[in-house]
Amino acid sequence: MRIALLGGTGDIGEGLALRWAFHTDHEVIIGSREAERARSKAEEYETELSSRGTDLTIEGYENAEAAAQGDVVVVAVPPWHVADTVEAVADELGEALLVSPAVGMNHDEAGAHYAPPPAGSVTALVAEAAPEEVPVVGGFHNLAADRLANLDVNLDLDTLVVGDDVDARETVIALAEGIEGLRGLHAGPLENAAEVECVTPLVINIARYNDGMHDVGVTFE
Amino acid sequence: MRIALLGGTGDIGEGLALRWAFHTDHEVIIGSREAERARSKAEEYETELSSRGTDLTIEGYENAEAAAQGDVVVVAVPPWHVADTVEAVADELGEALLVSPAVGMNHDEAGAHYAPPPAGSVTALVAEAAPEEVPVVGGFHNLAADRLANLDVNLDLDTLVVGDDVDARETVIALAEGIEGLRGLHAGPLENAAEVECVTPLVINIARYNDGMHDVGVTFE
Repeated sequence: MRIALLGGTGDIGEGLALRWAFHTDHEVIIGSREAERARSKAEEYETELSSRGTDLTIEGYENAEAAAQGDVVVVAVPPWHVADTVEAVADELGEALLVSPAVGMNHDEAGAHYAPPPAGSVTALVAEAAPEEVPVVGGFHNLAADRLANLDVNLDLDTLVVGDDVDARETVIALAEGIEGLRGLHAGPLENAAEVECVTPLVINIARYNDGMHDVGVTFE
Repeated sequence: MRIALLGGTGDIGEGLALRWAFHTDHEVIIGSREAERARSKAEEYETELSSRGTDLTIEGYENAEAAAQGDVVVVAVPPWHVADTVEAVADELGEALLVSPAVGMNHDEAGAHYAPPPAGSVTALVAEAAPEEVPVVGGFHNLAADRLANLDVNLDLDTLVVGDDVDARETVIALAEGIEGLRGLHAGPLENAAEVECVTPLVINIARYNDGMHDVGVTFE
């Protein structure tokens, strides 16, 4: 499968790119608003993977060109760029499915707070911005970026997947479980996305207030 | 320590009462709107504990009388009864601290959804309803009631504790950790309560959509 990571130069994009490239046979494509930046990051990832004895090619393109090549297109951009990014690549999506890992948050002295867009969740915002026939799935929200990007660390974490399209949701759960130590759990239809996204500020608060939990993640047992 | 569980006849109240009575030396007091109901449930709990070879007394009173006896008063009532319950016992609290485990939720076809009161969280609602000098701590939100009340099951779970008063917060973390298999994590000041409470509908959705996860709970690692 070909996975295009729009915003694949950012920290969650980096972790997902490295993990999918290293742990699976999927082809990873990096997208960015600037093709040059996508290519340069893709080369960094290749170097990191090559230092671990793998010889993989990761390509980098401007977002729309990356989207055109993906069977799965991950919108790994900050929440305030999500709608514009999806609209900019809408004509290139074809049969692809969209994955939304972003979370809207405010930060104040006390900590991080969940701040969904008016659509109700970032995942719902992606669905609003996407062509009607494109399935949208929420997933990969609550992962500490440093831990995800460090291939020396076994994840031992869960990620929660929401979406209305059964096939698309199961594809994303399988993509999650292709990553060693990551389990994908079904959290219901897209309407349940806010309850998934709101865990990200909580994880940030726990990391802040408890010693030794800098890279904390969540599991359900 | 004397722990008064207002609404201690309900399912979360039952689990906390049994666990504290069984695992710790704290004295557990059951409160209810009706003294008779509190006494009858307290006797049920005594019978359950006695079947496990312990000989403990659990007393039951009307909520205000229970509150008057507690060093720690847990408001284990449904969210729509929280404000009334706190106001009804306010004059009896003295030096006690209040603990809020309730969560506001809506349920629709898709699942459970977080629905905090206008105060921003149930914990904040308790703080609004309580006398100013009474410390309020949020905790014990995301525990499956059946699992909590079944003393045969080791919990192996985390609970998230929020509050502005450091001593009160640490007291509640210690109370959590008195229960075998339960770890209390510090999630920041009371302002961070919504990010804790919103995990409850998520846990309910995960239980619904994944086989074999009926009694699922959350851990942070």
